[in-house]
Amino acid sequence: MSPHPLEEILHPRSIAVVGASDSGRGGAFVSALVGQEYRGKIYPVNPGHSEIMGFKAYARVKDIPDPVDYVISSVPASQVLSMLDDCVEKGVRAVHLFTARFSETGRKEAAELEQEILRRAGEGGIRLIGPNCLGIYYPDEGISFHEGFPRESGSAGLASQSGQAVGEIVQMAAQRGLRFSKAISYGNAIDFNECDYLEYFAQDPQTRIIMMYVEGVRDGRRFFETLRRATAAKPVIIVKGGRGESGTRATASHTASLAGSMEVWETLVNQAGAVSAGNLEELVDLAAGFYFLSPIAGRRVAVAGGSGGSSVLAADECEEAGLDVVPLPVEIREELKSKGDPIWDWIGNPADMSIRVNRDFDTGDMLVMMAGNQNFDLLIAFIRGPHRRGNERISAETVIERHRLSELNNKPLLAVMVDIIPGASDDDDYAWMRELMEEVRDKLVAASVPVYPSIGRAARAASKLIDYYQRRESD
Amino acid sequence: MSPHPLEEILHPRSIAVVGASDSGRGGAFVSALVGQEYRGKIYPVNPGHSEIMGFKAYARVKDIPDPVDYVISSVPASQVLSMLDDCVEKGVRAVHLFTARFSETGRKEAAELEQEILRRAGEGGIRLIGPNCLGIYYPDEGISFHEGFPRESGSAGLASQSGQAVGEIVQMAAQRGLRFSKAISYGNAIDFNECDYLEYFAQDPQTRIIMMYVEGVRDGRRFFETLRRATAAKPVIIVKGGRGESGTRATASHTASLAGSMEVWETLVNQAGAVSAGNLEELVDLAAGFYFLSPIAGRRVAVAGGSGGSSVLAADECEEAGLDVVPLPVEIREELKSKGDPIWDWIGNPADMSIRVNRDFDTGDMLVMMAGNQNFDLLIAFIRGPHRRGNERISAETVIERHRLSELNNKPLLAVMVDIIPGASDDDDYAWMRELMEEVRDKLVAASVPVYPSIGRAARAASKLIDYYQRRESD
Repeated sequence: MSPHPLEEILHPRSIAVVGASDSGRGGAFVSALVGQEYRGKIYPVNPGHSEIMGFKAYARVKDIPDPVDYVISSVPASQVLSMLDDCVEKGVRAVHLFTARFSETGRKEAAELEQEILRRAGEGGIRLIGPNCLGIYYPDEGISFHEGFPRESGSAGLASQSGQAVGEIVQMAAQRGLRFSKAISYGNAIDFNECDYLEYFAQDPQTRIIMMYVEGVRDGRRFFETLRRATAAKPVIIVKGGRGESGTRATASHTASLAGSMEVWETLVNQAGAVSAGNLEELVDLAAGFYFLSPIAGRRVAVAGGSGGSSVLAADECEEAGLDVVPLPVEIREELKSKGDPIWDWIGNPADMSIRVNRDFDTGDMLVMMAGNQNFDLLIAFIRGPHRRGNERISAETVIERHRLSELNNKPLLAVMVDIIPGASDDDDYAWMRELMEEVRDKLVAASVPVYPSIGRAARAASKLIDYYQRRESD
Repeated sequence: MSPHPLEEILHPRSIAVVGASDSGRGGAFVSALVGQEYRGKIYPVNPGHSEIMGFKAYARVKDIPDPVDYVISSVPASQVLSMLDDCVEKGVRAVHLFTARFSETGRKEAAELEQEILRRAGEGGIRLIGPNCLGIYYPDEGISFHEGFPRESGSAGLASQSGQAVGEIVQMAAQRGLRFSKAISYGNAIDFNECDYLEYFAQDPQTRIIMMYVEGVRDGRRFFETLRRATAAKPVIIVKGGRGESGTRATASHTASLAGSMEVWETLVNQAGAVSAGNLEELVDLAAGFYFLSPIAGRRVAVAGGSGGSSVLAADECEEAGLDVVPLPVEIREELKSKGDPIWDWIGNPADMSIRVNRDFDTGDMLVMMAGNQNFDLLIAFIRGPHRRGNERISAETVIERHRLSELNNKPLLAVMVDIIPGASDDDDYAWMRELMEEVRDKLVAASVPVYPSIGRAARAASKLIDYYQRRESD
């Protein structure tokens, strides 16, 4: 089998950044490549400069003495055609057009120019990414458009019509321990389009789960067929931008996409076996679940570690999300009784840990007991924030501080950490709390536990994961 | 009119903390009073100590030589009756029972003891707060149960059956600039109950908005009548804990509450003119809106400052929340055109600010134009995070950096700040970003702008506020 056409352009020996300068977006592409430790050659191109960010600069692409495989264009739209001619002459294989102001402006001449660019590139044997997009983040190749993205790679793949969304998703996901095989911002998608990217990730062995942000699809039949094949191979989670009237208007001016009917979309996405998310936060919530958890066998959830009102609301929000908050099994109560626990008959599910006097028995112990019980299919743990006890600063208790996760018997575990720091933000007394919370979060992430900022988000993500696995089982 | 019975006990000249020690919850009450700069006298009571945290300690309440107005009890349940006898002898007016393990245990003898305590206190002329609660936070009197609560007071009142919820609410609200008149955790509520607290806040001139977390009400008729009277005076926002089967089980073991039917509850809360919230985050989202914003006249929202996908999803989420994302009025386009703006015909609502080349015209300028237009009833601004431009560190742009809020023409403004920091958490390169973001957040809070962590939460809060004002208008 020949490699996917995208695979052929993803390993450039050299990248030219046309329209680079020491500041502005063109220069930011150069510094992102440097920051990401791109091992190939970098050639800034700008007729007004002899050197840019320490690299020798060239006036035109064809002036570069060595081969150029890949070009990032940040010149104005009016200069793209002549730049493309240079690229053809130079034997460039792919051009990423950061350049915008094409069909998305709604102007006839801009849309015509876009079509002419596609035609000219096709004739010259050049594949296009974009226009109007941020392009490729591929950590293993050291390619990035953003300095702050992790250098480490992982197994999440992302294709997004919006570059801003890639930035937001990669960074939100990174805070929760997910890393990416590749993340691609593809904008107006005049050459490679959403189907190509989806197809690529479906066959990419480095990618275990696929995330997408889509505003519109050009060829609905091909897209849903590709989607069906992709979901047969790995989970696909999709956010649709442009669901309502005003959002549809916004997609037109953003990436010139025709959004189409939302009802038809939802039906087809479901039929294809993909998972829908309503916004980028939910996309990351779901991706974190698929990334870290083994398949969840059923809906019976055990919740531990909350206290008072948070336990009560945890029960409500889990139930409203479609989880089954079963009562604490009698075996667990009997075991607590046999250990001399004074509140054995009172503790329930959710297990409110604030009512425990005995500090030797903590959330981790409770979770181990719950994990060992066949009445539960998954576990949700509240990780309480750090606090002061007298003069002592107590770290948040964590499951992993006192237990090995292997004791959880392979039961899927989701952690909830509510980000609350006491005191006003000008109160330096509490900076240590933020530090301790971040330390605990890092420990959980390192232990491959997906962390959620609220019980509602954890419960809704878990429920959609269960829907997904149950649907697959019934297929 | 005689003062409300609660008012009579809220200004104690002295507080005794029975069961205090240098560590543990009893001691934490003492250090919270110290931290909050309580001006009255503090008397720790513990037969095993002569001094606690620098205060002379007494063996029993009746040993204290001076008058004692208010007692916080953290002795075990079995010692409460004898402590109460001492309090009666000493002329104490109110006892806050942090002490728990009563009816919430589901045990008959514990429930009977609770009733005996109520009887004995009534005979002795002592009013009770609790049992099984954290009691009172009253910043102007320097009373608190939590060291980290702000010392500054404000105009939000909170009554909550759960003490944990008070902690979470006060701290989440504090991060967003809300301050409290009083916040009361009332637990099992055997004497003063939810109706008394609601009635108190309704008549309290220091309280402009009332927040409640309720698990169950004893007397439905009185509660809803009180609620109706309260909502006539000021906005009341309520979270109900124990909405489903498992939540109802949890309320029983938390505060011995009977949760009742959720449908009946929702109907009665709506009929009374109160606002329902599904969880504590939404409670704070709504409270922030009522706290800072003038009434919103209609649903037509102007959104500015997002970019790319976030603008598209903003349109979708606003519309799904019930807001009306009207197209950008022609007058604004004409004004942009007359100013020579090259994309005057392309910019829309949401106004995607990433498509602007001209950096002299920012989100603030756009908002000022939108605020001046009669087609909009409210404004939502995305405040973009700080970023690097070349070697320069750019602060988040804010409305208030370049504009006075008065230029917004009194249009209600909600700000959205998504908390994303690039890079992994171990990357010190980006610590400056968090600092800058916190600085910007502080500026917004200081300018009385409610800040939301996502567009969805801002839109849903705004929509419920509009529902509230429209319902009042039609009454």
